[in-house]
Amino acid sequence: MRIIDLSPTLSPATPVWPGDPALRLTHPASLARGDAFSLTELTMSAHTGAHVDAPAHYVRDGAGADVIPLETLVGPALVVDTGEADIISAGVLDGLAIPPGTTRLLFRTRNSARGLMVSPRFHTDFVAIDAAGARWLVQRGVRLVGMDYYSAAPYDALAPTHQILLRAGVVIVEGLNMMAVAPGGYEFICLPLKLKDADGAPARAILISP
Amino acid sequence: MRIIDLSPTLSPATPVWPGDPALRLTHPASLARGDAFSLTELTMSAHTGAHVDAPAHYVRDGAGADVIPLETLVGPALVVDTGEADIISAGVLDGLAIPPGTTRLLFRTRNSARGLMVSPRFHTDFVAIDAAGARWLVQRGVRLVGMDYYSAAPYDALAPTHQILLRAGVVIVEGLNMMAVAPGGYEFICLPLKLKDADGAPARAILISP
Repeated sequence: MRIIDLSPTLSPATPVWPGDPALRLTHPASLARGDAFSLTELTMSAHTGAHVDAPAHYVRDGAGADVIPLETLVGPALVVDTGEADIISAGVLDGLAIPPGTTRLLFRTRNSARGLMVSPRFHTDFVAIDAAGARWLVQRGVRLVGMDYYSAAPYDALAPTHQILLRAGVVIVEGLNMMAVAPGGYEFICLPLKLKDADGAPARAILISP
Repeated sequence: MRIIDLSPTLSPATPVWPGDPALRLTHPASLARGDAFSLTELTMSAHTGAHVDAPAHYVRDGAGADVIPLETLVGPALVVDTGEADIISAGVLDGLAIPPGTTRLLFRTRNSARGLMVSPRFHTDFVAIDAAGARWLVQRGVRLVGMDYYSAAPYDALAPTHQILLRAGVVIVEGLNMMAVAPGGYEFICLPLKLKDADGAPARAILISP
């Protein structure tokens, strides 16, 4: 069994969505300063690094990150490579030969080739899913989508894709580092912090290859 | 397959170690206030809720939470019940009939019967492992211990147990809600946030029962 870590390291060099709070790690106690132990305090947006979007992110009175079903977050997943596509449209999805019954679908896009998740600067020209692509995924019964940058939706059209997926109960996992992942079938495990009523939550996500 | 969630919900009602920073969830953007989406900002100690202790917590220049091996955090685990024991000593461990080769060991103690992890008030009289018990675990080759309250070590002797375990590379997982868990064998998955060089990290932890 081989474990592939999909979560980028969280540090002040981790990219942050424009306008989101900065990620800060401070140290109220420190062995190096003579304390009995070291202690880290963490401040961050729930949408920095690898994270889940809960329905509450884009749906008024939507469910929080603490009640996203673990049964959706854990299980077989398919990693597909979208090659040079600039947008994940219904047409692009049609061409990926996704087997019927695929419930967890992770996209390795040009974002990975460009190393966006390990670049401290935020990029707006990332590959994401358009509204018709989102409807395609819902209609095919996909229950979880994984993205290799910070949004399931294009930067200039954020609401439609998020709303289509989240209203249908599709779990969105964003901020995955897919640079070292080959297309194919894996066991996927994404465990977000259980933040009460929150619109999202930071997560560690892994793939297990047989 | 049944998934048992071991992470308590994170909210202002989650207990916090005395002196640690408070857990705060704030909302820089909110659908209810007319924003295009809702956004949560999180501030917390790395040692609130379910979390891992990294060697850096008690060992100067020790490794951080970001490099704890995933291969240790994922795999078969044994849940043992320590009954009415007030301390997990070498003698108590001798009496638990722990099979040789057990590498991940989760303790369900009186802390669970008392519901300590779901009580907002911090308690100091929790069950933990004494120094001789920690040496016993290292000698038997245990690589990960899971605790059902906030410390592997008793409140009045924090350093020895932590130092013995962390210097030996044993991963410590604390703050688990074991109230609904029966003793026995499971698959354990603990995925902490990948906080660079941090002395610990919040984690979501689950058991999978066959």
